[in-house]
Amino acid sequence: MALTKLIEYEDASPEVRAVYDDILATRKTDWINNVWKALANHPPTLRQFWGEVKEVMGREGGRLDPLTRELIYVAVSMTNNCEYCIRSHTAAARRKGLDDQMLGELIEVVALANKGNRLAIGYQVEVDDRFK
Amino acid sequence: MALTKLIEYEDASPEVRAVYDDILATRKTDWINNVWKALANHPPTLRQFWGEVKEVMGREGGRLDPLTRELIYVAVSMTNNCEYCIRSHTAAARRKGLDDQMLGELIEVVALANKGNRLAIGYQVEVDDRFK
Amino acid sequence: MALTKLIEYEDASPEVRAVYDDILATRKTDWINNVWKALANHPPTLRQFWGEVKEVMGREGGRLDPLTRELIYVAVSMTNNCEYCIRSHTAAARRKGLDDQMLGELIEVVALANKGNRLAIGYQVEVDDRFK
Amino acid sequence: MALTKLIEYEDASPEVRAVYDDILATRKTDWINNVWKALANHPPTLRQFWGEVKEVMGREGGRLDPLTRELIYVAVSMTNNCEYCIRSHTAAARRKGLDDQMLGELIEVVALANKGNRLAIGYQVEVDDRFK
Amino acid sequence: MALTKLIEYEDASPEVRAVYDDILATRKTDWINNVWKALANHPPTLRQFWGEVKEVMGREGGRLDPLTRELIYVAVSMTNNCEYCIRSHTAAARRKGLDDQMLGELIEVVALANKGNRLAIGYQVEVDDRFK
Amino acid sequence: MALTKLIEYEDASPEVRAVYDDILATRKTDWINNVWKALANHPPTLRQFWGEVKEVMGREGGRLDPLTRELIYVAVSMTNNCEYCIRSHTAAARRKGLDDQMLGELIEVVALANKGNRLAIGYQVEVDDRFK
Repeated sequence: MALTKLIEYEDASPEVRAVYDDILATRKTDWINNVWKALANHPPTLRQFWGEVKEVMGREGGRLDPLTRELIYVAVSMTNNCEYCIRSHTAAARRKGLDDQMLGELIEVVALANKGNRLAIGYQVEVDDRFK
Repeated sequence: MALTKLIEYEDASPEVRAVYDDILATRKTDWINNVWKALANHPPTLRQFWGEVKEVMGREGGRLDPLTRELIYVAVSMTNNCEYCIRSHTAAARRKGLDDQMLGELIEVVALANKGNRLAIGYQVEVDDRFK
Repeated sequence: MALTKLIEYEDASPEVRAVYDDILATRKTDWINNVWKALANHPPTLRQFWGEVKEVMGREGGRLDPLTRELIYVAVSMTNNCEYCIRSHTAAARRKGLDDQMLGELIEVVALANKGNRLAIGYQVEVDDRFK
Repeated sequence: MALTKLIEYEDASPEVRAVYDDILATRKTDWINNVWKALANHPPTLRQFWGEVKEVMGREGGRLDPLTRELIYVAVSMTNNCEYCIRSHTAAARRKGLDDQMLGELIEVVALANKGNRLAIGYQVEVDDRFK
Repeated sequence: MALTKLIEYEDASPEVRAVYDDILATRKTDWINNVWKALANHPPTLRQFWGEVKEVMGREGGRLDPLTRELIYVAVSMTNNCEYCIRSHTAAARRKGLDDQMLGELIEVVALANKGNRLAIGYQVEVDDRFK
Repeated sequence: MALTKLIEYEDASPEVRAVYDDILATRKTDWINNVWKALANHPPTLRQFWGEVKEVMGREGGRLDPLTRELIYVAVSMTNNCEYCIRSHTAAARRKGLDDQMLGELIEVVALANKGNRLAIGYQVEVDDRFK
């Protein structure tokens, strides 16, 4: 069970409903996933985080395409061990083109980087002048 | 200073030199960066990690292009706060096409994901059935 | 299931019972929560950690009030993704005055800090001289 | 050296200057610290993060007072090992009343929580029903 | 449920079966645990990671004995909060001699180190010249 | 520079000097390293942490020998990227017998575990019944 109740659409204040409506319209879907229902307990966070996700993950005309953004989001979530985030953002990534082969390659790089990070930290390797 | 001495090419054993030579040839460069000189203190790690980096980061015909792999590597390294890895892999990414605009977008997504992870964890949000 | 058995009061050694009794008396409660029953498998850890929690979280006359200490404990636990700790210490915090509004604000700051950390790390921002 | 150049006020675009001006006015100070000069390389992040910091850390009438918010921010930054964030936000906290005694108590709780987290995780302690 | 299907022996390709057979023979066991069945979705990872685990965790004639290697693996997994890894590698460690007393001492040191790390980071302690 | 001043022996209160004296006597050394001089700003932490380190890292008759304890401490410190802790505890480990070969093997296992953790987390592998 979440730490607080999940706020369903029918129980939501007009302020929260407005965000839910925007999520439904932006994503062209007919359901709200749990993280938003949890955030609705603190409307400033709901409104702020939804606005940020909408802008950053959905920005048109950026240099990173939407699927790449999702891959990066998932890579961070795997490193931090956030199950909710891994599952919800791999679902989002699948809608944008992620297939099993890409997922396998993504996890492979995430695992390699976590290892490489500890090799460099373990030996306390100094940054080469050329990298500064 | 690194935790152990850095092993220069001229002081390296034939086994270590063979790896250094492969790094130089594969990367078409004329210098070895510090992390390899540190790993050379334990040749099995040097040989194994170089083989893995060469295969995973350089694989031909994968579903993720080489630049995307570097972006994922950097995203993990930023989340783990590994300075050496951030600097060496942004350098690698720049050689594969990373520009300042992409770097800004990468960091933006990394930061957003680290925040989103703690929102989901903070509220202990249950995974929706549809995501399982 | 925990990694080891949980040691109930009736099965506990006198040494462990003495700690359980002190927990019950100090907290004015009639039950022992699971973490102590797990730690009881290694009595030195049980005794040491309980003594430390009692002193640090319950210290009279400190500059930080007991609720603020719990908020800090929860903030760390959310950052580290420790479900047991989030749930047990938000329960403790509620007994000391935490309400839903404060919880929402707490999570908001925890999430913001996790994001801000990666912005500073991502750009490898140098510490300003005035901050040293 | 930061990963990108730091953008000084005199070299900033009007969009960036507007944010710098708001920072200076809001904080009643005459200098801009480095993190903002780094973020200015990607103006959407600068504008978004400043707006968020201003709202969350400076909100009037919240249930958590401004100093408590800074303590939470610092606790997260210590857990994540972000030097820039530790130094800049302890400086901010000092302006809001943090003294050496409070800092000692803050670090004590942060350290205890990081330990307690691993005790609960190490033993894989199940969450008590009463905490759910 | 895992993020992808688990690949059972009877459904495995010859390439995957060869790795499964080597796991069974090396470990002198008659079952394959889930992590390998998940990795089998991306055979290069399965083959590479199994080879690495076999070499690093099972190396003969190293300076660290096999049980010590497992203890280190578990210590990392507790710090990172990886339930699967904690459970599978404490099981492996028990086969190599881990008992309840040692487990208690292991967790005690892991917890202490996580605390000590944040004390040093919290105070931003400079490295003594003698340690460099 | 540390976040607070370092308290030298000659400037220390009798309470702090008593701890310093015990460190010098227990370790049979003639200098105090910086972490203790930082902790001395908050004597309860200094006294508590020194007592804990003395007991846990130095316990006679435990099942884990002192060198193994240091290796575990270092493994955690590498995973958390605590430079001070890596350097001070590899120095302690060297006094207890750590050599370059063992250090290489230690880092190899730490890196492998950090990778293995993300493979298990990345695929969200379910714990096998036999491991529960």
